[in-house]
Amino acid sequence: LRPSLQTLGTSVFTRLTQLANQHGAINLAQGFPDFDPPAALLDAADNAMRHQFNQYAPSPGLPALRSAIAEHSRRRYGVDYDPDTEVTVTVGATEGIWAAVTALISPGDEAIVVEPFYETYPAVVAAAGGVVRYVPTTFPDFRLDLDRLAAAFTSRTRLVFLNSPNNPGGALLTAEEFAAVAALADRYDAYLLCDETYEHLVYDAAVHLRASAVPGCRDRTMVVSSASKTFSVTGWRVGWVLAPPPLTDAVRRVHQFITFAAPTPLQQAVATALSTGAGSGYFDALRAEYTERRDVLIDYLDRAGLPAARPAGAFFVMARCPDDDERWVTELIRGAGVAAIPGSAFYHDRSGGRDLVRFAFCKQLSTLHAAGARLMGKE
Amino acid sequence: LRPSLQTLGTSVFTRLTQLANQHGAINLAQGFPDFDPPAALLDAADNAMRHQFNQYAPSPGLPALRSAIAEHSRRRYGVDYDPDTEVTVTVGATEGIWAAVTALISPGDEAIVVEPFYETYPAVVAAAGGVVRYVPTTFPDFRLDLDRLAAAFTSRTRLVFLNSPNNPGGALLTAEEFAAVAALADRYDAYLLCDETYEHLVYDAAVHLRASAVPGCRDRTMVVSSASKTFSVTGWRVGWVLAPPPLTDAVRRVHQFITFAAPTPLQQAVATALSTGAGSGYFDALRAEYTERRDVLIDYLDRAGLPAARPAGAFFVMARCPDDDERWVTELIRGAGVAAIPGSAFYHDRSGGRDLVRFAFCKQLSTLHAAGARLMGKE
Ligand SMILES: CSCCC(=O)C(=O)O
Ligand SMILES: CSCCC(=O)C(=O)O
Repeated sequence: LRPSLQTLGTSVFTRLTQLANQHGAINLAQGFPDFDPPAALLDAADNAMRHQFNQYAPSPGLPALRSAIAEHSRRRYGVDYDPDTEVTVTVGATEGIWAAVTALISPGDEAIVVEPFYETYPAVVAAAGGVVRYVPTTFPDFRLDLDRLAAAFTSRTRLVFLNSPNNPGGALLTAEEFAAVAALADRYDAYLLCDETYEHLVYDAAVHLRASAVPGCRDRTMVVSSASKTFSVTGWRVGWVLAPPPLTDAVRRVHQFITFAAPTPLQQAVATALSTGAGSGYFDALRAEYTERRDVLIDYLDRAGLPAARPAGAFFVMARCPDDDERWVTELIRGAGVAAIPGSAFYHDRSGGRDLVRFAFCKQLSTLHAAGARLMGKE
Repeated sequence: LRPSLQTLGTSVFTRLTQLANQHGAINLAQGFPDFDPPAALLDAADNAMRHQFNQYAPSPGLPALRSAIAEHSRRRYGVDYDPDTEVTVTVGATEGIWAAVTALISPGDEAIVVEPFYETYPAVVAAAGGVVRYVPTTFPDFRLDLDRLAAAFTSRTRLVFLNSPNNPGGALLTAEEFAAVAALADRYDAYLLCDETYEHLVYDAAVHLRASAVPGCRDRTMVVSSASKTFSVTGWRVGWVLAPPPLTDAVRRVHQFITFAAPTPLQQAVATALSTGAGSGYFDALRAEYTERRDVLIDYLDRAGLPAARPAGAFFVMARCPDDDERWVTELIRGAGVAAIPGSAFYHDRSGGRDLVRFAFCKQLSTLHAAGARLMGKE
């Protein structure tokens, strides 16, 4: 194994799901829905397979899907992207991130990662031989400290990872914050990689802002998103990268040799769903359902004596953990039969999240009720 | 874009398919079937989607698919692999190759590539900052010259790419050849990466030999294969890597951050097809159909005055090209309405394949007859 990969351990999500399964625990650890995707989406995939959508898609993605993604961005966020030169379909947001980093980070280059973070970001930078600089944010609101962010930039900074709505913290970045990051990126000749996987999962009065919609951001921003969470198909592996032509060109050059293309019939189905989603009220219904799931879980955490932050977005709740997070989660799985993620998994310095624990609420209400009963020691 | 990626152009398959489409040419360039996959495979995928196979698979692959792959390797080639520690499902063979190279090649390391080659191999090595050493083989038999191969090894050699059955040459490696490569790899502490994507497409008396079945090979060999060609689903993106535990561990560490996992419902469908394929006579029927397609195409090439080699495997025919390959193919597309790949795309030094052209025969007989008529100037 190459030296720069020695630090890559097994994904914390793999590890905790395995532990959950071993102990028959309810899995509120890994972020995947335990309910079905929309039936129309499955019908569309079946229909695509029966109508010759089984061979290689063009490497940048099916034209119908690229158009649907661009149209969705325009109508929902007012940001235009040219499907031919600015939209690339990838194998989930994961491959989009890998491709962007491979295209931009040379050994020794630096990337800035805001803590708590999704574990892929630092891992991918390490795999490219890059160096990560961390900017911590803290429970319960996880607001970005722009002074600390500014201090993390150096002449070697190439990339700033943003994630809004944020996994695991639930925070959304504001227009002022995006503009401030873009101004720094401009000064240091760096780029923004904004992971907007949870773009449709925002609650109460919160409004998702597409990073590239903010004045001053578009030229230096790569937006990454995916069908996984919007359509409850985390296993379909259909994501995308939106970026100005030179960045899209860079992403596509590596994408063609990483995976060549995303799965064709599933691309075609997502194109249909994305085009019809807005008109059908699907996105509003999704948000209403998730709001209820969030509130149900938080209520149980409250009653179980676990003070939780109410997230504005994404589908995770961070709560204070009454003991060392690793020890407490292990005990929760074994004793109560509920799995969660230890908070330190989201910080590079373990002490950062040691008093936190993350619960996922992308689950049926019945699952959340069952988990709640276990958390309160009632079962 | 990182300096080491500047050399990555647009895939020759993308380029020629675009040109074919622009001119309404019959596409014998890019290797994808123009017929449907087995109906049972589509039924299995639909069934999987309707039964909750829509969320993340475990990163190494669905256990059912890993078992089916191991069982297939054992029964067909007599090589045992442990599904838990030696089989990894990837997003096509493409991601398997990318993951293996990312795991093993550091900047400055060397890899050996036999010419003519599938374009991914040198591109992926370049992306990792590695250096490629080429070993040419020539029309019409494309036999490996073991002396030239031995001369290509240096103290920095980490990897030898093999591809049997070979795309584009059609040659199969013999046990003696595999053993000789393994002995060299042993001496130089290098590894074999054997792409066996066309393992089920061998003709006449030819028998596919799994690289790792050859004595002395197993410990240093990674076998890469895929459902794409065996089940006529190049767009499904389900491939795999078979390798001893330490190499599998290395591949999995990067795979989890490249794509996390291959598409779940399609993995489940391939598991079914692979398990039932042998019993149903599917593989034999596939081979018989492809033998006929091959012979039909070669007959037309003969009659069109294009001397072709009759391949022992894969689904391509290399033929002598009466003019500069790029010029001739461009004219063929524009004039006759048939697309093929210029031979030089498969050699690093353009002059290597300048007098060759590759035609794909993974097409319905009616397509081949139509292309044949055009090649003979009869339409
Ligand atoms: C690829 S497994 C991780 C799923 C997820 O988004 C999360 O749990 O944070
Ligand atoms: C990924 S496009 C290449 C398809 C193929 O295997 C070939 O044409 O050689």
